Order: sequence, then structure tokens, then C-alpha cells
Amino acid sequence: MSDRYLTLINSPFGRTVATRVGLPRPGVLRRYQLGDPVLEGPLRLGRVGADGIKGLPELLTGVGLGLVEGDSEVVSQDRDASCGVGSVSTRETGRQRWSGLVFDASAASRPGELAELRDFFAGALRRLAPAGRVVVIGRQPQGQDPVLDATRNALDGIIRSLAKELRAGATANLVLLTGDADAAALEGPLRFLLSGRSAYVDGQVLVVGALADESGVADWNQPLAGRVAVVTGAARGIGAAIAAALARDGARVIAADLPAAGEALSKVANQVGGTALQLDIAAPQAAGRLIQHAETRYGGLDLVIHNAGITRDKLLANMSVKHWDSVLAVNLEAQLLLNRALLDSGLLRAGHRLVSLASTSGIAGNRGQTNYAASKAGVIGMVRSWSSEVAAQGGTINAVAPGFIDTDMTHAMPFATREVARRLNSLQQAGLPVDVAEAVGFLCWPASSGVNGQVLRVCGQNLVGA
Amino acid sequence: MSDRYLTLINSPFGRTVATRVGLPRPGVLRRYQLGDPVLEGPLRLGRVGADGIKGLPELLTGVGLGLVEGDSEVVSQDRDASCGVGSVSTRETGRQRWSGLVFDASAASRPGELAELRDFFAGALRRLAPAGRVVVIGRQPQGQDPVLDATRNALDGIIRSLAKELRAGATANLVLLTGDADAAALEGPLRFLLSGRSAYVDGQVLVVGALADESGVADWNQPLAGRVAVVTGAARGIGAAIAAALARDGARVIAADLPAAGEALSKVANQVGGTALQLDIAAPQAAGRLIQHAETRYGGLDLVIHNAGITRDKLLANMSVKHWDSVLAVNLEAQLLLNRALLDSGLLRAGHRLVSLASTSGIAGNRGQTNYAASKAGVIGMVRSWSSEVAAQGGTINAVAPGFIDTDMTHAMPFATREVARRLNSLQQAGLPVDVAEAVGFLCWPASSGVNGQVLRVCGQNLVGA
Repeated sequence: MSDRYLTLINSPFGRTVATRVGLPRPGVLRRYQLGDPVLEGPLRLGRVGADGIKGLPELLTGVGLGLVEGDSEVVSQDRDASCGVGSVSTRETGRQRWSGLVFDASAASRPGELAELRDFFAGALRRLAPAGRVVVIGRQPQGQDPVLDATRNALDGIIRSLAKELRAGATANLVLLTGDADAAALEGPLRFLLSGRSAYVDGQVLVVGALADESGVADWNQPLAGRVAVVTGAARGIGAAIAAALARDGARVIAADLPAAGEALSKVANQVGGTALQLDIAAPQAAGRLIQHAETRYGGLDLVIHNAGITRDKLLANMSVKHWDSVLAVNLEAQLLLNRALLDSGLLRAGHRLVSLASTSGIAGNRGQTNYAASKAGVIGMVRSWSSEVAAQGGTINAVAPGFIDTDMTHAMPFATREVARRLNSLQQAGLPVDVAEAVGFLCWPASSGVNGQVLRVCGQNLVGA
Repeated sequence: MSDRYLTLINSPFGRTVATRVGLPRPGVLRRYQLGDPVLEGPLRLGRVGADGIKGLPELLTGVGLGLVEGDSEVVSQDRDASCGVGSVSTRETGRQRWSGLVFDASAASRPGELAELRDFFAGALRRLAPAGRVVVIGRQPQGQDPVLDATRNALDGIIRSLAKELRAGATANLVLLTGDADAAALEGPLRFLLSGRSAYVDGQVLVVGALADESGVADWNQPLAGRVAVVTGAARGIGAAIAAALARDGARVIAADLPAAGEALSKVANQVGGTALQLDIAAPQAAGRLIQHAETRYGGLDLVIHNAGITRDKLLANMSVKHWDSVLAVNLEAQLLLNRALLDSGLLRAGHRLVSLASTSGIAGNRGQTNYAASKAGVIGMVRSWSSEVAAQGGTINAVAPGFIDTDMTHAMPFATREVARRLNSLQQAGLPVDVAEAVGFLCWPASSGVNGQVLRVCGQNLVGA
């Protein structure tokens, strides 16, 4: 399972060799551990013009970040495990290393004003710490004013380029607020994107609307406290990682998988202190059995994670009816039926979250995977289409699209193919199942009610060609 | 300028070597020459269910394609230069090679119905001719019915995967009709996507609305007859290719470029039988000078091609104010000012076309190009935002986003970098300036009034990572 190249290249010997012969030098990613602060060091905040998003500096300070505006005010940060974020103390420092750079470009209305973004980053980027975080905040184009919309869309090109420039495990992402969203809607997305939870999310654009409900998170070490989750395909790989992450964050977990996965499934259920449910999601009685289990054991359901999926790769020219039908049935039709049944059941509580696993194959296609890509593109279409109805019921529905993730499945690939695929992204390494799990967890937070109908890629800015 | 690897690998010796050692084998692309038929051989048409788009078979026959439905009816085709497309004659053949495969999936409303797509392609793909064309037609998701929208969006994953599977210069693309569009809106897109004009367009999704006006094309050897076009940056490279293609297709061309390009510009203007206009598009008087030239010499303007652009590459950490500002000014702000002035001038005639050159860098970002990507993403935002206003004035506005195109600029790249960049797409080769020019020409056709606010990539399905 381990990426031996990554380990070697970050040893003193490996660094020397890599520098001499020009090998890729993937950085070590910063991953969240329970109790970690959002950032280990100070954050610098910049903005276009005098007006930014109202309350953004206060929000960042409230998150516990060592906030620095301009060069005038320098605040460092000590780790404080008790609240899961750093506490703030003020003292002057010299040439500070930034753990995070946040630029509020929401007030930019002409291309010329983007020069302020250059001014901010050209100076600050040289002092970005390893595994640092860059987040740019803008507003979504609205289709009315071409000068305004050109300026707003320019941020997309900037952040995708910048993510390709950063090294040493640092990432850059863009948050686009919709018209009515304010600083409150940013707390969840910023806590996710600045923290080690977003280690493998890079070069992405997240659209964030106004909060649908104000229910905050009391304890950020337990953001899912009181929630009941079901995770399909939970016996191994990404599904097991999701079950573990949701449980760590406070959720009670129903681990579901095929009867054949029996022993592995029981093990996962035990590890997360949840219940095991043997369930073939493509069977006609699947929805009924899931609803009965959740109702009997937990009295309701909050989080539904559609992770179960299969691959049956063949070129379309040689694709059998069986390969085609089974992939569509398990990966797409089962989710459509389960979601319909759950939404009609009355079992889903206010603030519920439906999260589907898509794939970069569903976005960019993949050779040999017309069936799989059809199912995953279908999932994306489903999520977008259902977002209004789910919002009306008080919940959200989103998808997470993993790129190249190290699992048993990828370890069955030929060595050379796997090594090349691993490096074809801006972080020059594969993601881990936990990276996908953290993105799922973020979408489940009460603080994420402004994120709906979205597809969040966890792919290290994969060069997949869409 | 020539791709020597491409030439070698398609020689008998090169083919043998490549097969033995597993080298990439880019196919020879089919490119349009004046008088070429849309396809050289027969086309097979399939559909989901009994109902497809009304009039589609008749449309294809009218286009002069040798149309075959199912296996029952076989029609072959002879070349007829007089109408620019093949004429149709009926005779039985044996195991036909298909030059084109069109599948009408517009009636698919459940994922299960996509099995008919598999049935069609699994049989037919093995008989696709070199440089063949696959076009799937669907309808755009509408955000109301999750089962329907999942089915419709599945086509996206299928076509992007299939494009990665095809070899020998064949391409696959998807046309998504909006709610009110019918067969008439498909004539332009199908003539483009099936013909040699779309040689380097692969794995793309084109959204097509209803025709805004019914003005057809009388002579498909001269689809731009009677139109007056201005092309900026016309003195060389892609701009010169656009000027030539528009002139070949019947337009009268104003070739515009910087005064410094004087001699090269005159040469292009002479070659295309047009006029030369020395114009710095970033100068304050640019719009006034262009309007005066077009009014005095031609009495009006139909086609505006914003091709002029510059690059000033640097990592954002080292980006100078001058590099940033100049790229934004020339590539984005000048277009915003010119378009505003032209739309207000009354000079643009009914059926006018504004086409901007974007770039895959503006979609996916590029290392060292935050400024360039900002400008090109800005252009994309501009085009989308302006589409309603331009449509209200009787025109369209679109962008073409080239991928890796062989020009003097790319020939200044180091050999190894260029060779790798050339192969990182599904066609395993760079595009040519004429490929971009043909896409611009297509958007300019009277028959393209249903294509508005779109970004058409000409990139061979580039693996650029967005």
C-alpha cells in the first residue's frame, strides 16, 4: 500500500538524487489527525479594494487562525488540542512563514482590479510553508454584466494555474459564493480547505450558497455528533475509510456491504462502534431493508453515503451486455431507487446529507470504462438534478469524485501503469482513502448546508483531460 | 513545423517498429479540402427506442450522407465535388466500413435504455473506418427529473471514454440539444463534426439550441459568402490560418495586426484578397479605427474574430506588474472594450458572430501562466455573460479553446517538452492552426445560430487537468 517512491524522494538521499536528475519530487501531504488545529501557523489575508466579505477577518479569527492582514499586524498561533483549532496570541515576528494565504477577491468588478491579487501573492507565495494552503474567494458569475463576469471567471484560470505551480504538498482552491451567501457560509468550506482534511483537494472550484440552516457545530472535534450515517460498500477500501472518518467525527455508523463481505464488514462495524448491515443495494428489497434497519436501530437517518460501486472494464467495441448492465445497475440505478425511497420514507431528518461517490472517470472519461463513466456521469447528473428537491426537504445532495486513490484495486494494476498514473497530478502522488473520506465528512457537516448539488474532486488536480 | 514522428510512425517501417515496442501510434487526421464531401463513405444511424429526433434521417440524407439505418438498408456514396458533399446512390454491400456512426440517444429517459447505445456501438465500432466520426446526440439535463437527468448526463461520460478508446484519427463527440431545438439546429453541428473540418475536435460536448434564424447556406463550398470578417492578430500562426479559412469559405476579410507586423500582415491580406488594418487592439482609439475601416471599406461587419493575444510566462511568485497587466490588457480588456463598442455601433449586421480565442489554459490552468489563464478564463466568462445580449441583437458570441497547436511559438519550446506535450491527448499529436480556423469558421456559419455562449475546445481531448 505504501508509496515507496514518495518515501524515498523525501529522504535526504532521495532529495539529492532527485534534484540532480530532475525527477518529480512529490511533497509530503498534511493530513488531519483528531485534535489538529486548522492550520499549524499564521494565515495572511488580503483583499481587493477596501470592501471585502463582511465579517471574514472575524470569522477567521473565530476559527482560531493566526490572522495577519497586510504586513501591519502579525499574530502567531499555538496549538490547542482542546478545541481542535489553534488559539490566538499576538506578537511581532520577522519574516513569517505563512501556513495559509486567503485572498478575498469578491469585490473585484474589473479585470484591472485583479492586479491586487498579483500584488498579494507575488510577495506572499515565496513565504508559503510546506503543505500550505491557498484559498481565493470570489463570487459566481451571474450572466448579466460581461465585464464583471469576465473578472469573476478569471479567478478560475488563476487558481488552476497556481495549483500547478505550488510544490511541497501545498494546495490552491477557489470558493465561489453565490449571490446571497455571506461570511457565515464560508466557515465550513474554509475549515475544510485550510485544514489537513483537504490534503488531496487541489485546483478545485467550490460553489457555496447561503446557509440553509444556522445549526452550527458545538465541538469541532465532533462535528457529526448525534448523526446517524449509512455507508454502502463499507467493508473495505474507501468505504471503510469513510465509516472510520464519520465515526471519528462523532457519527453513529451503519456499515453496509454485500453478504459475501460478511467478516470484513463485521470487523469495520466493530471498529467504528456501529452496526453491520448485509445489503445488496441492487436487490429489489434493498431500500426496504435499509429503512427498516435504520428505523429499528436508530429511529432515523441523517447521512447517506453511496460508496458501493463496481468496475467491469472493456473497450466499448467489446463490451458485453452483462458488463454494461451490471455496472449501470449497481453504480447508478441502485442509487436512484434508494434515494427516491429514502426521500419518500420520512426517515431522513432535517439537515440530512446524501453523498454519492462519483469519479474523475465520470467527468473526463476513461479508456475501457464507458460503462463505469456512464454510471458516474449519471450520478453527477442525478446529484445536480435532485438538489432543489432535497433542499426543499431540508437537506443537501452532493458528489465526491476521487481521482487516483491507492487501494487494493489500484495495487492490482501493472507497476509501470500505476507509477505513471500516480504522478499525473499536481501533487505527483496518489491520494489515500482517508482523503476521500474527509471530503465526504465535510459535505456532511451541519456547517455545509450552503454546499448543494456540487461535485467535489479529490484528485490532486488530476490531468485527466476534461 | 512538420511532425516527423507522425510521418515516421505511419510509414510501413515505422508501423512495424511501433507495434513491436509499444510506441504511441498517432493516426493521420482527415482534414477538409475545398469540395470534400462531409464523409467519404457511409454513415450508420442508430437510436434509442422507436422515437428519435424527428427528421434526423432526412437531414442526414439531405446533407448527402450515405445513410444506413440498422443493417437493413445499405446506401453507398459517391463523391460529388459540385455540392461539396457526397451524392447518394443505393446498393447492397457486404461488411461495410462505416465512415461515421451517429447515435440518437435523445429519447433515453432511464439508465436501462442506454443498453441500446451499447448494442449499437459494440457491433459497429469494429467496422469504423480510419479517421471515422462518432457523434452521439442527446438532450441537455433540465434539473427536474433525477432519473432523466442521470440518463442524459451519462452520455457525457460515455463519449469522453469512447474518444479515449478510438484510434487511427477517429473522433467521438456529443451534441446536447436544449429543450426547444429540433433537427434543423443539427445541420451545422453535424456537417462540422462529421467532416474533416473537426479533425482535432475530440471528446467534446457541444450544446446546441434552436436556430435563432432560418437563413440557410445556399452553397456549402461558400458557407460564408457575403460576410465581412475582421481577424485580429492575423499576420501569422493561428490568425493567418483563420483569415485564410474564412476567405476560402467566401468571406471578405479585414486582416488586423500590430503596425510592427506590417509586411507579414500585407502578405496575408493579399493572399486572402482582403484588406490590411494596422491596429493595436489595446490602444484607446482601437475600436474607433476598426469601426471606421469596416464602415468605409465594407459598409458593415458580420464576423469579429478576437485572435490577437500575448503570453508573458512567469510563476505567480515571480510575476511582475508589467507581465500581469499587459497580458490582461491585450487578451481580455481589449476584447471587452471592442465588443462593447461594436455592439453599440450599429455596424454589426443581423446574424453577426463574435468569436474569441480562449485556450485550454483558461479552462485547466497552466504552470507559469496565471496571467494568461486569467485572461482566457476571463474571455470564457465574457462570452457566457454576453450571450443573451448578443442574441437579442440577432448574433452569437462563442469561444474556441485551442489545446497544443503546432505554431512558431511551440517550435521555440525545448524538444522533449514539446514532444511530450504533443502526445498528451487522445489523438497523440499536436493540432494545426487550420484546425482552430475550421472551428472558428463553423461558429461563423449562418447555420450555427443555435450555438451561443459556448466554448468549443480544439485540443484532441487534451489531458490538461480540469
